[in-house]
Amino acid sequence: MTRITAVKTYDLRFPTSNTLSGSDAMNKDPDYSSAYVEVSTDADDGITGVGFVFTIGRGNDIVCAAIDTMAHALVGRNVEELLDNMRIAWDLLVHDSQLRWLGPEKGVAHMAIGALLSALWDIKAKRAGKPLWRLLGEMEPEELVSTLDFRYLTDALRPEEAIDILRDGQRGKQERIANLLEVGYPGYSTAAGWLGYSDEKMIRIAKEETQGKGFTLIKLKVGQNIDDDLRRLALAREAIGPDVRLAVDANQVWDVPQAIEWINAFHEYDLAWVEEPTSPDDVLGHATIARAIDPIPVATGEQMQNRVLYKQYLQANAFGIMQIDATRVAGPQELVLEYLLAAKFGKPVCPHAGGVGLCEAVAHFAMFDYVAVSGTTEGRVIEYVDNQHEHFVHPTEIRNGNYVAPTAPGNGTDMTLETARKYVYQGN
Amino acid sequence: MTRITAVKTYDLRFPTSNTLSGSDAMNKDPDYSSAYVEVSTDADDGITGVGFVFTIGRGNDIVCAAIDTMAHALVGRNVEELLDNMRIAWDLLVHDSQLRWLGPEKGVAHMAIGALLSALWDIKAKRAGKPLWRLLGEMEPEELVSTLDFRYLTDALRPEEAIDILRDGQRGKQERIANLLEVGYPGYSTAAGWLGYSDEKMIRIAKEETQGKGFTLIKLKVGQNIDDDLRRLALAREAIGPDVRLAVDANQVWDVPQAIEWINAFHEYDLAWVEEPTSPDDVLGHATIARAIDPIPVATGEQMQNRVLYKQYLQANAFGIMQIDATRVAGPQELVLEYLLAAKFGKPVCPHAGGVGLCEAVAHFAMFDYVAVSGTTEGRVIEYVDNQHEHFVHPTEIRNGNYVAPTAPGNGTDMTLETARKYVYQGN
Repeated sequence: MTRITAVKTYDLRFPTSNTLSGSDAMNKDPDYSSAYVEVSTDADDGITGVGFVFTIGRGNDIVCAAIDTMAHALVGRNVEELLDNMRIAWDLLVHDSQLRWLGPEKGVAHMAIGALLSALWDIKAKRAGKPLWRLLGEMEPEELVSTLDFRYLTDALRPEEAIDILRDGQRGKQERIANLLEVGYPGYSTAAGWLGYSDEKMIRIAKEETQGKGFTLIKLKVGQNIDDDLRRLALAREAIGPDVRLAVDANQVWDVPQAIEWINAFHEYDLAWVEEPTSPDDVLGHATIARAIDPIPVATGEQMQNRVLYKQYLQANAFGIMQIDATRVAGPQELVLEYLLAAKFGKPVCPHAGGVGLCEAVAHFAMFDYVAVSGTTEGRVIEYVDNQHEHFVHPTEIRNGNYVAPTAPGNGTDMTLETARKYVYQGN
Repeated sequence: MTRITAVKTYDLRFPTSNTLSGSDAMNKDPDYSSAYVEVSTDADDGITGVGFVFTIGRGNDIVCAAIDTMAHALVGRNVEELLDNMRIAWDLLVHDSQLRWLGPEKGVAHMAIGALLSALWDIKAKRAGKPLWRLLGEMEPEELVSTLDFRYLTDALRPEEAIDILRDGQRGKQERIANLLEVGYPGYSTAAGWLGYSDEKMIRIAKEETQGKGFTLIKLKVGQNIDDDLRRLALAREAIGPDVRLAVDANQVWDVPQAIEWINAFHEYDLAWVEEPTSPDDVLGHATIARAIDPIPVATGEQMQNRVLYKQYLQANAFGIMQIDATRVAGPQELVLEYLLAAKFGKPVCPHAGGVGLCEAVAHFAMFDYVAVSGTTEGRVIEYVDNQHEHFVHPTEIRNGNYVAPTAPGNGTDMTLETARKYVYQGN
């Protein structure tokens, strides 16, 4: 038997606001940051579990403080008992009767829980010698479902339905694993699209990302000025040609009536989706927008607080493309639930990534979905931006526009702390 | 000109889990707590602004950490400029482009902002020599509306509509102020209803609260065991007689199908409302429940994260009684918006209170509504529990079951720190 001996957090901040990489209509000057956590045990296997929350600067310390407080529930616990059914750790953290008041299940507290649960799954995957996508994809349907919390979901997805979905996902699994290891999973690029970039820089990067790197979808940020948006869309379409798909992202900048009016000026650009037209909390607003801008699909999810919101978006048909984020919700179990909900309602999931560590983290869930849930990559792409990958022990690799399937054991988000410690926040 | 010189937080925790006062189906052992903040200036008027976030124990330190981080945006600022239009402080905190990532507008970060904005409004009211309800009620409609943020609301409530509602509220205002000062505002009691209490204790307190103290509505906690619920409802109805209203509160314990089945066993008890049947995030779920249990009204709001959720509940007709909480959202400006939304959709608001400081705080908003928005107390009551009032400089007073209108300048939540400092958390 081994025990959890320590939980240590690092407030890491990268000064990305210097370059306006990452700038959009809502986030004018992000400093990409990570509230990074290491969970240690007294096993002599050399394994440390890692997790993190991505933020964009100020407030990263608050997330670290939340992780530190939540960690009290784990230190001293029996590791094998926790890893045997991760539902125990979920209940300890998500259903702590006092901590629950801080959400419930949203914001800083929920993201902190996600980092800790990710770190435990990282230990489980490392002990099993498998990358997380493969650990999840090779768990028996009943075993995986027993780790999941269906509270507040049963009007949309019941445990028996989840097991059925995963049973269906068993057929052809070995070929899909082989295919994934050979060709990878489709990515798309947001590198050209930041609002802080000049037209020339946008065009140059759009060409590099598509003709050079092989991405078949790029995304531009919009929503600050409609004339700029239309000019940039025309320039981008000209640069990438008719066969590359083009999506846009407003980062929540509009109200519902304004979103409809603005997006309806975009119809001629054959958009793959319009992302985050308004508040992520507004299920009914997104449903109204989705009806009004048809056939342009609405996409959202990078700031979706929890599974209860996803459930409603699916019930209300409020988006055409479901997005997810690796560090917004309570870790792998909630991400698996998100994919199961999407499968139940037949929506494709295109994960949000780009922020420090998000590409490394979210690829595992998209690949798990391909292997064991939806069984397809049709209409599915993972966001990619070439940011801060050099700080990871196993950085995301892109080949021919595809994410290469990770093979190292674990969740893939170990940072090379000799580099990253240079970025430990010193206060302001 | 004066400046903000310091923001100091206190992590105050009261060991209420010893008595099971406050226990319900979801919150088995709360330790009522306050993340309390003082905002000081260099004015020589002796005024300190106070605000707080109510929590139920673990995690109160995380809220204090969030307030400390947010405070950087205020220290050194010109006080008069901030007080002149509180929209500036709202924008500094709610729309900080980096901090926004922690929500947006929900959970720990949003509650921390609420405590700081409350403290600024407290300074404004104290400098004006008025209780907050009267300061808000006597502001010109245009002046008050200029402090409010309608982002994400304009599909339901536009600024010009808000001004119209407040203009209508001018008629008869002086008589209502006089009436409020004379008779107060109706309260209701939850003192009898905690799940941890024996039947005998529940009956005794139910009689004291109604026949003794004059409350005309009491509330029982339900949702742990249906046989217990039905027995307690029958006993309570017998104890209070047919003329006192009876509400129940499930504290989010059910899923949607289970809520409908459970509540439909309650029809014979003539319930004033069923509170928090499921997750506060589930707009569509509440709408489904509301339709299925008609004519019993659904009530919710004490954990409603922000104005975007209230908007949707109103648009979807998902509750019959709107509740609000004084420290869940971003302070007085968001609370005023909640009342304006309720007025637009014609729903009565019955505020949540009872936790340490919540009665003191929320009464000001209910009274502002009576004076300047809805103009009525018909169908409206403020929750009351006799908890921790002794720690306040101006504790809530109840007379004949009514909240007495506060007359002391400010928001009414100054704590007597000689007492409260005994409860500063020493760590675990």
